[in-house]
Amino acid sequence: MKEKRIYNFNAGPACLPLPVLEEIQASFLNFNGSGMSITEISHRSKWFDDVINDAIARTKRLLKLDDTYHVLFLQGGASMQFCMIPMNFLADGRTADYVNTGTWSTKAIKEAEILGKKINVVASSEDRNFSYIPKNIQFNSDATFVHITSNNTIKGTQWASFPDTKGVPIISDMSSDIMSRPLDVKKFGMIYAGAQKNIGPAGVCMVIIRDDMLKLIPKNLPAMLKYTTHSDKNSMYNTPPCFGIYTIQLVMKWLEETIGGLENMEKFNQKKAALLYDFMNGSDFYKATADPDSQSLMNVTFRLPTEALEKEFIKQSIENDFGGLKGHRSVGGCRASIYNATPEGAVDALVDFMKTFEKKNG
Amino acid sequence: MKEKRIYNFNAGPACLPLPVLEEIQASFLNFNGSGMSITEISHRSKWFDDVINDAIARTKRLLKLDDTYHVLFLQGGASMQFCMIPMNFLADGRTADYVNTGTWSTKAIKEAEILGKKINVVASSEDRNFSYIPKNIQFNSDATFVHITSNNTIKGTQWASFPDTKGVPIISDMSSDIMSRPLDVKKFGMIYAGAQKNIGPAGVCMVIIRDDMLKLIPKNLPAMLKYTTHSDKNSMYNTPPCFGIYTIQLVMKWLEETIGGLENMEKFNQKKAALLYDFMNGSDFYKATADPDSQSLMNVTFRLPTEALEKEFIKQSIENDFGGLKGHRSVGGCRASIYNATPEGAVDALVDFMKTFEKKNG
Repeated sequence: MKEKRIYNFNAGPACLPLPVLEEIQASFLNFNGSGMSITEISHRSKWFDDVINDAIARTKRLLKLDDTYHVLFLQGGASMQFCMIPMNFLADGRTADYVNTGTWSTKAIKEAEILGKKINVVASSEDRNFSYIPKNIQFNSDATFVHITSNNTIKGTQWASFPDTKGVPIISDMSSDIMSRPLDVKKFGMIYAGAQKNIGPAGVCMVIIRDDMLKLIPKNLPAMLKYTTHSDKNSMYNTPPCFGIYTIQLVMKWLEETIGGLENMEKFNQKKAALLYDFMNGSDFYKATADPDSQSLMNVTFRLPTEALEKEFIKQSIENDFGGLKGHRSVGGCRASIYNATPEGAVDALVDFMKTFEKKNG
Repeated sequence: MKEKRIYNFNAGPACLPLPVLEEIQASFLNFNGSGMSITEISHRSKWFDDVINDAIARTKRLLKLDDTYHVLFLQGGASMQFCMIPMNFLADGRTADYVNTGTWSTKAIKEAEILGKKINVVASSEDRNFSYIPKNIQFNSDATFVHITSNNTIKGTQWASFPDTKGVPIISDMSSDIMSRPLDVKKFGMIYAGAQKNIGPAGVCMVIIRDDMLKLIPKNLPAMLKYTTHSDKNSMYNTPPCFGIYTIQLVMKWLEETIGGLENMEKFNQKKAALLYDFMNGSDFYKATADPDSQSLMNVTFRLPTEALEKEFIKQSIENDFGGLKGHRSVGGCRASIYNATPEGAVDALVDFMKTFEKKNG
């Protein structure tokens, strides 16, 4: 039983900004003078309209989105988008390019294939266990979209910049790095992100979608699986995940008012990641798993000399109030997820712990 | 700005038991000694396993479900089930019977039709504006399932008992009356319920599904739209809506330990509903809209002599700390939603307010 909060390096659900959690807690029995909890107010009320519209307005300001972009809040996580994307945008005769950078891209490709859609995997880093982001990709000019995963939480890779697709809209799963840096949004026809890493709790997926993409959608899809259903109704065709949207609103407020925007957020994230990568570059004991030019600023994956040492490292980290440092069960090793909300002090403490562990075991 | 909590008669999202809200609030920065918020713990952790498994165990005990039933927690609300049900259970050559008792049944039927599935609407109460539950329905013996909506939140109707379908499994949308009374579960192949009325916050849908139904599911569906994906992984194929599941766990605990089970809950709900219906039966001013044998114990819909009086009634109710009494926008009038968590005192206060309003305006 921990008396106080720990250093949380979970890959997702992940740590949230403490002021956000404190505000939720303080207002939990009486939201904004409504006399009800945020979980008890109607989604058709003025109170909730203010929540969702403020969440959208702040998202648009932070990402500098013009009025051709719609911000939606859907359910089912990024995994539901894997099937909705081909259903919505790949009517008969259309094709798309997919880049495979690991688990999540692979799942997105598989869902398009289950639906019998014609897609081309134009690049993959599977040859070296997805430890890098492919370069110099030849995209097809007749593709309806190019699908990428901007950051791979499991392999610890991230697109440092986005490819030139010669005008073909990019659709990116940004679940693990949305709002971590400014974006040149004009390249993107759609951005989606399960909230539980950088912007909120599990159970809500932010979808940013451009007008021209909405025009591709066939009419005969089930209502809940059609983006236009949700864009036509401001994400309230049916009852939306209100608590998740409220939390996102507070995180966007924190990004704007406390952090001061995405330029600042990026600097802050670069600094935190550098603390870990620079330390490991000077160590023979810890080894980052991703290629240097593909290393993620969000998920720092690394190995120790032996699996036995890794096991001991994880055990001692938990005893020392660090959480979430075990690598994904599919790859092993260690991983420190350092999303927007991870305080610099937590990374400092981790580097100190790693130094001490190396001294004793190196 | 309300200093204190109001009498909440919202149709959904709706009031939750106060002890549940208080427990969430108290532990919000440090869940169960984890040093993290419930929104920050990993869904792959021992902490969350305990939450979801306890929510399932309590659900099974409360509804007396044997091991042939699986309790799942999905996203997308009941509306997503409207399309998943025909996708999963109506492979080529199969048909189903649907009973149309208003808005939600109508939507479920429409989704099956969009998918090109063969269904029969075997009964409907549309002839009298959905103010009653159809009787003496002739079901088709070759139907794969019979779909009903156990309670209609908008029209204020509820199935008092469930029909004899001669062994054809019933699939019921129980979004607005799940856990409000004991059930003869053997009749049901599947029960589903958006949580935001009787058991939790918006953003999680409880799905109870029987083994024999799982065997009907085709292999080539998108992963997220296939019930077996979720039943095979204890609802954790991808990140589940953790906060919603946690809230459901606490509501199930309250039902078992504070209320004492569904027999007690039913008595309590019958008593609350009788307070309102009995009062209106003795009044010429208020008129319940549903037929007496079809009146819902959950959503008490009623009219006043004129729309002007209804408008004034709603206005004064808000001034007197009653929330949610306006009827659904599609039908007008008034509605008091009195789900499990509505305290008897709130219904007493409402009847007093209604009496006073009648005296002044009747």
